[in-house]
Amino acid sequence: MAENDPEVRTVDIVFEAEARTLDKLKSEVTITSKYSNFEVTLQTDEGKLHGGDASAPMPLHYFAAGVVTCLMTQMKASAKRLRVPLEGVRMGASFHWRIEQSGRDPYSSVPVGFDIDIEVDSEAPLEDVKNLIEWAKKGCFAEQALALPCPVGHRLKVGEDWVAV
Amino acid sequence: MAENDPEVRTVDIVFEAEARTLDKLKSEVTITSKYSNFEVTLQTDEGKLHGGDASAPMPLHYFAAGVVTCLMTQMKASAKRLRVPLEGVRMGASFHWRIEQSGRDPYSSVPVGFDIDIEVDSEAPLEDVKNLIEWAKKGCFAEQALALPCPVGHRLKVGEDWVAV
Repeated sequence: MAENDPEVRTVDIVFEAEARTLDKLKSEVTITSKYSNFEVTLQTDEGKLHGGDASAPMPLHYFAAGVVTCLMTQMKASAKRLRVPLEGVRMGASFHWRIEQSGRDPYSSVPVGFDIDIEVDSEAPLEDVKNLIEWAKKGCFAEQALALPCPVGHRLKVGEDWVAV
Repeated sequence: MAENDPEVRTVDIVFEAEARTLDKLKSEVTITSKYSNFEVTLQTDEGKLHGGDASAPMPLHYFAAGVVTCLMTQMKASAKRLRVPLEGVRMGASFHWRIEQSGRDPYSSVPVGFDIDIEVDSEAPLEDVKNLIEWAKKGCFAEQALALPCPVGHRLKVGEDWVAV
């Protein structure tokens, strides 16, 4: 285990979010991190076809943005540490889900495939660039959360108590 | 299979992102979706401690925002379909990763736990609220992508070709 290996350093990274519903399908969320000492408040909405006002990005705009830019940051940070020259990176990504719905039930969503195409401006040998991408993938918080099964725990406030749901 | 069940309707939902690195640790990403007909361009940065300028949210701010607000939207949409009265929802969420790093290698990141606490303003019976949350979890694109293993495919542009990496 990494925790028992004296040569492995570990740091805990925690992001916290406080969200509340606004009018119709709008929500507002404030995200903080002790690690970054940076707080941001964002609003989300849905399109008019789905009962929203299209007044703000949809939740999945932020989700997709977070996944891709996390990998971008890891490419740059890993390049520095691996001493791989890196002028710039461009990525084109696709996030594909399928909705399944029957009768009057709400729908269920199923992830189908997430793909990222990477273009790298670098004078480094191809093998070095491939190695850089491997490290960036391992370092990318978002990608690791997608690739590994990460059940989300939920609690509901019932009276003064928190009940697992 | 859902595709073979005539009573199950399916809809494909695809979000696409185009990203490029900017100066230092900054990135810019444009996210589009045919489904929502809404396009947004966002910038990300890292904190000064990590070589950035703290000029924009970090990728994980957007990632966490997307996960929580996706579930918020699903709560509202599912409540409407299930005819559960719902005045408002508040959520407090925690996203916890651990960095592991040794020698001069870049770090690897490991998801530790994601938890969401939910407060619901509703006159509905507790069982109806619990059922609503179950449906919202199943409908939440982000949560399903976290809970299920979703390997991300990568291709690198080498000359004029795209090579799997």
